[in-house]
Amino acid sequence: MLLAALELVGIAAFAASGAVAAVRARLDVFGVVVLALTTALGGGTIRDVLLGVHPPAALVNWPYLAVAGGTGLVVSWAHPTVARLRRAVLLLDAVGLGLFVTGGTATALALGAPPYAACLVGMTTGIGGGALRDLLLREIPLVLRREIYAVAALVGAVVVVVGHQLGLPAALVSPVGSALIVGLRLLALWRDWNAPVPGKLDG
Amino acid sequence: MLLAALELVGIAAFAASGAVAAVRARLDVFGVVVLALTTALGGGTIRDVLLGVHPPAALVNWPYLAVAGGTGLVVSWAHPTVARLRRAVLLLDAVGLGLFVTGGTATALALGAPPYAACLVGMTTGIGGGALRDLLLREIPLVLRREIYAVAALVGAVVVVVGHQLGLPAALVSPVGSALIVGLRLLALWRDWNAPVPGKLDG
Amino acid sequence: MLLAALELVGIAAFAASGAVAAVRARLDVFGVVVLALTTALGGGTIRDVLLGVHPPAALVNWPYLAVAGGTGLVVSWAHPTVARLRRAVLLLDAVGLGLFVTGGTATALALGAPPYAACLVGMTTGIGGGALRDLLLREIPLVLRREIYAVAALVGAVVVVVGHQLGLPAALVSPVGSALIVGLRLLALWRDWNAPVPGKLDG
Repeated sequence: MLLAALELVGIAAFAASGAVAAVRARLDVFGVVVLALTTALGGGTIRDVLLGVHPPAALVNWPYLAVAGGTGLVVSWAHPTVARLRRAVLLLDAVGLGLFVTGGTATALALGAPPYAACLVGMTTGIGGGALRDLLLREIPLVLRREIYAVAALVGAVVVVVGHQLGLPAALVSPVGSALIVGLRLLALWRDWNAPVPGKLDG
Repeated sequence: MLLAALELVGIAAFAASGAVAAVRARLDVFGVVVLALTTALGGGTIRDVLLGVHPPAALVNWPYLAVAGGTGLVVSWAHPTVARLRRAVLLLDAVGLGLFVTGGTATALALGAPPYAACLVGMTTGIGGGALRDLLLREIPLVLRREIYAVAALVGAVVVVVGHQLGLPAALVSPVGSALIVGLRLLALWRDWNAPVPGKLDG
Repeated sequence: MLLAALELVGIAAFAASGAVAAVRARLDVFGVVVLALTTALGGGTIRDVLLGVHPPAALVNWPYLAVAGGTGLVVSWAHPTVARLRRAVLLLDAVGLGLFVTGGTATALALGAPPYAACLVGMTTGIGGGALRDLLLREIPLVLRREIYAVAALVGAVVVVVGHQLGLPAALVSPVGSALIVGLRLLALWRDWNAPVPGKLDG
């Protein structure tokens, strides 16, 4: 119940991030909706393909599609009132990342995946949709660029797995993990706090 | 039988669209063949991965590979006689889309997928190969650019699903759905009939 | 045992090729590690998804991740001592290709795939990781560009399958196949030995 509700919030956040990025790239309304769907449902679909859940949840639960597609439509029409789109994409992306990593990790644990695999599946769930969004718009994925990204996802996934190992209730652990991810991402963005870059190379 | 024959025609059409795009991008003969294979077999492989068909049909049925690879070779050698390649890519892409969406939807229904999921799987089957083609050549996928594309796929998938629900014979419904998709795409291309683009943004 | 050891060597080679490419693209340390992981584990993950192995081996065997991630870290810090990076990427890519194609083909045969499908799965295992690396860095994949690449993978896969059909020991056949692939790739690179490119086109 909690997981399902959080997943819908995460879907809306990622759908909005995909839709805003698509609007910025001057795609038409259908392109915006397709990118909203891909960003929002891509991570969970990759998760289900990896875990052998056929067909993936995104393809059989219409609320997922309705929320993602509806968010895409709303962004298409409402975006002129959105002031700072670049910042909005990054904020929404952080929220989506936080919710998807913990949701994906919890889903993997519920399906019996070992802790180690659950971490990786959770990270993939969170990173996959945004990576597809960036690939489709021909940008090098956020996760590979200069901000703390993969490490925030890792921290959140580890929190969920450790909490599960300790027998703590998911209703407590998942929000803590999500908040940590969002907080780390926003800190990294607002303080321009990056991972070190390997030294300059000869071309 | 009808489905299998139509699928081979769709494979040849998509293979040709991938091969022509690869020739335009100045790839070598093997690159052209690989792109023909990816474009032609990618959508069906994604479909089988989503539906849990292991290994995917494209990997166990050699006629699929022979038709796709053979088409790639033929395009490699015969292309100088092709006059208008840009137009040819778009036309072949439309034919492939029409055949793959209805074929994918029918396959999903035959495997017991609910109507809603069958629509999505059918659309993915049709859109997947072309999206891979464009990604590999570093173009923003056709489906996201300014022409009616996803909506044509949706219309064809819905026709197949509704026909299936009404108990109409697939031999009737699939060609109608395919023709509708091809017609919508060609109309959109030839009349420059696009979906609305969200209003201009501040950078 | 032999297969497992070879697979770890191949993982390290591909991880290094991904990491060096990421360093060249000026990614940060985490980006370098993520690209090392994707390049090293992407092909095997695609193989397992195609063959229906859930969850994929890369997600449940921590040595794979440790080797790939560790190689990424080492390259991040040690790269200034690496003199000719462009050449290093291509050499490591050839070694990874050789080991992954034969390993993937052997795995598919061991899981009961027919010879024809085993060839394709093996080629995909070898080509997939490098293709993901190039896609993520927004380059047209090596496999599609002007050097002999797919054909080298095909030759190696056929050697493994024919050896398997003849009942020869895998410990003999796999190294021969790998060496053939690496040799073909290096020959193609060092002699600038390319496949023919279809003739010049109008616009």
